[in-house]
Amino acid sequence: MSTKIAYTPIGIVHSPHRRPRGTPIQPATAAGVPGTVEVFEEYREGLRDLEGFSHIVLLYHFHRSKGFSLRVVPFLDTRPRGVFATRAPKRPNPIGLSVVRLKRIENGVLHVRNVDILDNTPLLDIKPYVPEFDGPTEARTGWLEKARKTARRRKADGRFA
Amino acid sequence: MSTKIAYTPIGIVHSPHRRPRGTPIQPATAAGVPGTVEVFEEYREGLRDLEGFSHIVLLYHFHRSKGFSLRVVPFLDTRPRGVFATRAPKRPNPIGLSVVRLKRIENGVLHVRNVDILDNTPLLDIKPYVPEFDGPTEARTGWLEKARKTARRRKADGRFA
Repeated sequence: MSTKIAYTPIGIVHSPHRRPRGTPIQPATAAGVPGTVEVFEEYREGLRDLEGFSHIVLLYHFHRSKGFSLRVVPFLDTRPRGVFATRAPKRPNPIGLSVVRLKRIENGVLHVRNVDILDNTPLLDIKPYVPEFDGPTEARTGWLEKARKTARRRKADGRFA
Repeated sequence: MSTKIAYTPIGIVHSPHRRPRGTPIQPATAAGVPGTVEVFEEYREGLRDLEGFSHIVLLYHFHRSKGFSLRVVPFLDTRPRGVFATRAPKRPNPIGLSVVRLKRIENGVLHVRNVDILDNTPLLDIKPYVPEFDGPTEARTGWLEKARKTARRRKADGRFA
């Protein structure tokens, strides 16, 4: 099972976040931040019917993340945690996930809000966000139990750049 | 930006779903279905602190999906839709996303529930699920607006096998 899996970017994310430092650490901390998602021409037919959704899931490649660590000190904590218990970008497979607000689609460009993604990030996939599919409203969140409430005010400090 | 991105599986999902036909189409339709996620030994240190979370996000490779279509007739509809407005597996980058219930972790094996994933699926990433990060409880869901309420009773019919 150690075969490589190869993916090809289907587009690119444009955002005001040019450097890891100061970038919001989650969409919840990026309320209102606008961005655009440019889908390459050959994939645009796949965007039909997407505009009916108010929120979409973006999967993307953390292109600025080099290598990985199995233990990281996450932005919202001061202690090292297992990387799979965090959303830090230095993961074995550096795939990012953000749920953003979709405002409109024009010529293959998605205009979105709540963008916590670095400028020029390669896009891997877009999925419609459906509350019934994408998880419960109540969940136990381990070490994040306190920090999740204050995450809205926090920004990245560049530690994973 | 058409450079290939290469990922390596970090583990493998074991489930009772051996064939695409009859597999639940979303975790919400797979309530209670047990499965295990085997994380390869070299990545297990990254699982520390994960057990505090009641729900986790699994990202995986739809290994049984060959090629892709930009328009698909999804399980919950009778009309073709843009693939990015669906959760169908025949996507340009066939990455699957499921939020599952985490029961316990033993020797690098995660015991989970609500599994809508095929047996032997290569695992790409695990993230902690945090309601505040992973999307709003209210959202507009386009063509899925009616079907999302009945999705709980639906199974896959093998059309993307």
